[in-house]
Amino acid sequence: VSPEFDLIARYFTRPAPTALLGVGDDCALVQPQSQAALAITTDTLVAGRHFFADVDAASLGHKCLAVNLSDLAAMGATPRWFTLALTVPRIDHAWLAAFAGGLFALAERAGTALVGGDTTAGPLAIGITALGEVPPGLALRRAGARAGDGLWVSGALGEAALAVAVRKGRLAAAAPDWRRLDWPLPRLALGEALRGVASAAIDVSDGLVADLGHICAASGVGAVIDWPSVPLGASLAALPEGLRRDFALAGGDDYELCFAVPAEGEARVADIARRADVPLTRIGQFVEDGGVRVRDAAGRAVELAQGGFDHFRPAT
Amino acid sequence: VSPEFDLIARYFTRPAPTALLGVGDDCALVQPQSQAALAITTDTLVAGRHFFADVDAASLGHKCLAVNLSDLAAMGATPRWFTLALTVPRIDHAWLAAFAGGLFALAERAGTALVGGDTTAGPLAIGITALGEVPPGLALRRAGARAGDGLWVSGALGEAALAVAVRKGRLAAAAPDWRRLDWPLPRLALGEALRGVASAAIDVSDGLVADLGHICAASGVGAVIDWPSVPLGASLAALPEGLRRDFALAGGDDYELCFAVPAEGEARVADIARRADVPLTRIGQFVEDGGVRVRDAAGRAVELAQGGFDHFRPAT
Repeated sequence: VSPEFDLIARYFTRPAPTALLGVGDDCALVQPQSQAALAITTDTLVAGRHFFADVDAASLGHKCLAVNLSDLAAMGATPRWFTLALTVPRIDHAWLAAFAGGLFALAERAGTALVGGDTTAGPLAIGITALGEVPPGLALRRAGARAGDGLWVSGALGEAALAVAVRKGRLAAAAPDWRRLDWPLPRLALGEALRGVASAAIDVSDGLVADLGHICAASGVGAVIDWPSVPLGASLAALPEGLRRDFALAGGDDYELCFAVPAEGEARVADIARRADVPLTRIGQFVEDGGVRVRDAAGRAVELAQGGFDHFRPAT
Repeated sequence: VSPEFDLIARYFTRPAPTALLGVGDDCALVQPQSQAALAITTDTLVAGRHFFADVDAASLGHKCLAVNLSDLAAMGATPRWFTLALTVPRIDHAWLAAFAGGLFALAERAGTALVGGDTTAGPLAIGITALGEVPPGLALRRAGARAGDGLWVSGALGEAALAVAVRKGRLAAAAPDWRRLDWPLPRLALGEALRGVASAAIDVSDGLVADLGHICAASGVGAVIDWPSVPLGASLAALPEGLRRDFALAGGDDYELCFAVPAEGEARVADIARRADVPLTRIGQFVEDGGVRVRDAAGRAVELAQGGFDHFRPAT
């Protein structure tokens, strides 16, 4: 029939044992666990805005699923199913095979199954909607942080933003860890482990200060970041202080989790870090109000050069 | 923060009483009914391929949701929630308000709630993923048709395809019912009423012959359409026979349901038509094999001029 169906059949139909009915009917059919709430998130990546049009297809397949799974992680949800809306300018079999390879490798690793696909012709863009499950009372919302809660972040920040700057030719002398930009790993085990411990969480996609600002706005609190305690990507060490701050605090694309932990939960954090196999660092605390502020070692306010990622600002 | 969030907050955040948590966190949270299966479908509409870039924004908002709800209808599912991935070339407030108006008017009418949104800059495209619920044993799959089942279609066919031809300037002397192209109504009540009666169903989006072909392929049967019994849109009456056939059998965009009914269910069809408030017509029957064939009044084979909608064929 039409090439749309051939593409889905050829590249995007894999066994989906967790579905009653997978790709190839009017709808997929799945059976949610009774009692679990369903977490739903959707993110679209557009060539030239969210990625370079000539990026490696396998890493693109990986990354567009990873950014959606990162939203599930930030909710404490377990990934179950996802749909793919793929818009490509032309049918390039090598590209499609590589894209599907990257996509499904992460899907299998994360235990999620593609259950619906739609392929159309047009400027390159990838839309994914991901579904996960979480006990409704244990979901990690943005709105639960309270003044006095500790402010925590996973992993290290700034490596992906540095990689973007190098790829754009704005910085020549740095050697970023490209995997942090092209193959980010969503913190799924961490999100699940934080259920019942963290009072609020978000994933760091638009930059730490911007994303932390969403927790503060939703929770009606402020936050103070102690800049010297922020964990930096190793490649940032050689950079001037101002660049380190920009990349780590406002760079985005980190896909780490930023979360709030009440005092009574702090004793459990070390064990969670071990179980989820990721460093967790206390970088400040939530306060009554005042938005997000950053302090240096002397307690002075640090000014930032730029805000978070703006989806309507040209990429280059 | 970034304009992305302003757009979602301003135009796409409405109360979603059926959600535990709506737009504005990392994920939405919803509580599926225990026992129900979840039907999932995704469709992207791209400017210049699936619609004219200058189409009325309100009708576009309506239609991009309608085509997804039509897939739920074809599954016999009850709409519950949907996500929107909106890519727009610029921020045009009048356009966004009109688009949201058309979208939400249909959402309210259909009882479904927007629970996740993503807005990015780029060539105009709208991706929707729709979720519905259906008792798992009663879902209308494509694969259940058997030789001997009656072949049925709802409403009338060809009106939307005629409207496309007129809008493109290919036919001047016709007066199509524009609502069938711009404001299609998914057959949701019909889909629910057909649970337990129809043995297979599909919605007519790519053209009757092409879509019926999907039922035949999935069910391992053939089908014979009696051309004189196919219900035609009123505006097709004045057209030459060849055009009537092309529009009604291969035109697409009808969003009617095509379905199979075993002999023991035929007695219930009249009552279902009354309850769903839509004419239902028996247009042929399923046979052992041979794909989809069309017969004229004398029983002779009818040849068709074109296939179904091809997502990689330029729109104009």
